[in-house]
Amino acid sequence: MRLSRYFLPVLKENPSEAQIVSHRLMLRAGMIRQQAAGIYSWLPLGYKVLKRIEQIVHEEQIRAGHIPLLMPTLQPADLWRESGRYDAYGAEMLRIKDRHERDMLYGPTNEEMITDIFRSHVGSYKDLPLTLYHIQWKFRDEVRPRFGVMRGREFLMKDGYNFDIDKPSALHAYNRHMVSYLRTYERMGLTAIPMRADSGPIGGDDTHEFLVLAQTGESEVFYDDRVTQLKLGDREVDYDNWDEVAGVCKEFTTLYARTDETHDAAKFAEIPEEHRKVGRGIEVGQIFFFGTKYSEPMGAVVVNDKGERVPVQMGSHGIGVSRLLGAIIEASHDEKGIIWPEGVTPFHAGIVNLKQGDGAADAACEALYKALAAAGLEALYDDRNERAGAKFATMDLIGLPWRITVGPRGLEKGVVELTSRRTGESEELAPEAAVARLVEIYAAHR
Amino acid sequence: MRLSRYFLPVLKENPSEAQIVSHRLMLRAGMIRQQAAGIYSWLPLGYKVLKRIEQIVHEEQIRAGHIPLLMPTLQPADLWRESGRYDAYGAEMLRIKDRHERDMLYGPTNEEMITDIFRSHVGSYKDLPLTLYHIQWKFRDEVRPRFGVMRGREFLMKDGYNFDIDKPSALHAYNRHMVSYLRTYERMGLTAIPMRADSGPIGGDDTHEFLVLAQTGESEVFYDDRVTQLKLGDREVDYDNWDEVAGVCKEFTTLYARTDETHDAAKFAEIPEEHRKVGRGIEVGQIFFFGTKYSEPMGAVVVNDKGERVPVQMGSHGIGVSRLLGAIIEASHDEKGIIWPEGVTPFHAGIVNLKQGDGAADAACEALYKALAAAGLEALYDDRNERAGAKFATMDLIGLPWRITVGPRGLEKGVVELTSRRTGESEELAPEAAVARLVEIYAAHR
Repeated sequence: MRLSRYFLPVLKENPSEAQIVSHRLMLRAGMIRQQAAGIYSWLPLGYKVLKRIEQIVHEEQIRAGHIPLLMPTLQPADLWRESGRYDAYGAEMLRIKDRHERDMLYGPTNEEMITDIFRSHVGSYKDLPLTLYHIQWKFRDEVRPRFGVMRGREFLMKDGYNFDIDKPSALHAYNRHMVSYLRTYERMGLTAIPMRADSGPIGGDDTHEFLVLAQTGESEVFYDDRVTQLKLGDREVDYDNWDEVAGVCKEFTTLYARTDETHDAAKFAEIPEEHRKVGRGIEVGQIFFFGTKYSEPMGAVVVNDKGERVPVQMGSHGIGVSRLLGAIIEASHDEKGIIWPEGVTPFHAGIVNLKQGDGAADAACEALYKALAAAGLEALYDDRNERAGAKFATMDLIGLPWRITVGPRGLEKGVVELTSRRTGESEELAPEAAVARLVEIYAAHR
Repeated sequence: MRLSRYFLPVLKENPSEAQIVSHRLMLRAGMIRQQAAGIYSWLPLGYKVLKRIEQIVHEEQIRAGHIPLLMPTLQPADLWRESGRYDAYGAEMLRIKDRHERDMLYGPTNEEMITDIFRSHVGSYKDLPLTLYHIQWKFRDEVRPRFGVMRGREFLMKDGYNFDIDKPSALHAYNRHMVSYLRTYERMGLTAIPMRADSGPIGGDDTHEFLVLAQTGESEVFYDDRVTQLKLGDREVDYDNWDEVAGVCKEFTTLYARTDETHDAAKFAEIPEEHRKVGRGIEVGQIFFFGTKYSEPMGAVVVNDKGERVPVQMGSHGIGVSRLLGAIIEASHDEKGIIWPEGVTPFHAGIVNLKQGDGAADAACEALYKALAAAGLEALYDDRNERAGAKFATMDLIGLPWRITVGPRGLEKGVVELTSRRTGESEELAPEAAVARLVEIYAAHR
């Protein structure tokens, strides 16, 4: 994309309404625009990151054997009356009447609707196990929306639901989700720690939240800091192998890590002092096992291998897709702006032309732009008639992890400069070598 | 995808509520489920087609130089009061009050919001031309939703908005949209004819609808049937070349083709009798030029090259993404089921194992499945313990354009059968040759 033809409305001033750094930087980098309290437009740069995050979530869900579908944003109230949550949910549920005065609502989550789909179409244990998920806009009418997309009212969430014949199968589904989530967050450059949590209005016994450590987090967290060193890395996990999946979960949940809701001071005190940490965390996902909480009242039963009708065992599993943009920025920025991890960056590299209009510089930039595209990498080429300082400031603000700087002086020596946004380190390279380096870097993030 | 692990709830019976063939087939093929009047869940197969269609729309918009973003589903009423449409829109607009009693609405279209984004961030002719678009769920509270996704209440639409400094530039944007739409529909296997239309509540002078001919269409159409022979094909169009783009538009809009709204009996009579046709059509898109209808009341002004403040010239351009599934099926089906065009098929091919459990047949199917995946083609492998007739019926119903049938008898001769869903013709081939043929076929649809 050539910046002269793009729509990137960066702000020079710090917006006064933003209380936390991710909100401030998303506004300044021209990623979002508030349309009403807690309701945002995703401007082109923000939309690109949102789509990359969504894509990673899809890929990891499909890798785990989960099946995508899409439920609508509006739901009939009657479904929620069946589960008893229509009255219980409170003022956060946005209730709507249509032109025929029928009670509708903007879905804050989808347990009821997916259970309805299941009971209408599935009747036998032979069709299990089954995990269905979707990525759809939700609405929760928060009293005081704030922190930008971190606590918006209209937000994008991945929510998945497993259906299993018995509790052991359902607990395997729970574990499978945990592992797929660990991989999902790692691909986004995040360390998200699974912590035992409270189940809240979803209900159920087993639940873990995934928390990204950040000073601005809404939850207080207590943990053994060796938990932050755990990595899934590029190991292959066979999602059909119950023991292997359970083994990974054990590895990631044995060290102490809890939110204030489930904190146990005595157990915490057992951690060696040098590893005992108190901090804050941002919740970016949660998994639940809740058994027959919805299948019983809603009649989602299947025939088991003995010919008996049994309510299906369920769980639900969510990732806050739009909220993740805020969480990633909270975890990865500096005083100049955002620093995107390679896995989610909106463009793979920026190209800064130090002397727009100079024949050699323009030609070298065009050639680089095309060579990157041919290699499957998307560059943002700053081809505006601006001074170098302004171009650097924009690139630093929007946080592309790699920048190629092209100027007449370097070209005389046959080189361009490749700069890491994270370290600030630069290297002079022939243009082809710079392209080859970027190809190599991103090969690890495919 | 292995069918034994998929969620494909096909129906044996014809659903009584479906009045038209696309609605009936989408229900029978397990593509959609109605959750409330005019509100559908997209089950896995339907979701896959929806995503393919969405992807084609994105690719062709980006090819034309248009920039994607995403506006929210809910909008504040105040924006619509500025344009005067809040009261004018009528009962089709779903009006909502949030917990603080603020007036909101579920967006039926986005002229106001995009104009608001534009006026907040763009001030100079130097930032023009600019075309922004999104693909987002909309809601229109139809009195009597029907025909499945063809006339739903919650529906997915691509809507794009051009901003130009003067009328000639804006008319070029209009033409550019027309050409990009022609290419979009052709890639989906559709013949969609641009017809001069009425502007309705969007307003404006110039507008064309794109209509797919089908007996179940909601509009009566009058046309010279030579218009159905026009093809864009694989010619390259330079979207920055005003004359070239205008030339394509002229080619596609010179022959008579109008809806009943703009029909001119005298002109129609001039068509040679053998080419004069009356039929019905399904609207799958519409483009509008409306100048300053929104920019004037909403103060979307830019400074031109003489330093004067002028309201920006606009147009809006929509494609009915979810409705397209219905339109494609109306145009492409037979008594056995759907026939997907290659461009939008949910899976590239089906694999039918005639004797599940037979070692040679199972191994050949697995090998084919993997070879197709390695070639970038996704197969739906029917690995269930069902008789051949049931497997064929399912494949015919869901409409994958190509089927590979694998059985012990063929394998003894070293062949499998490749069958075209459209023609019913079969060919015996070595498995590798079948894969090669499919690769060749789909290379034309990338």
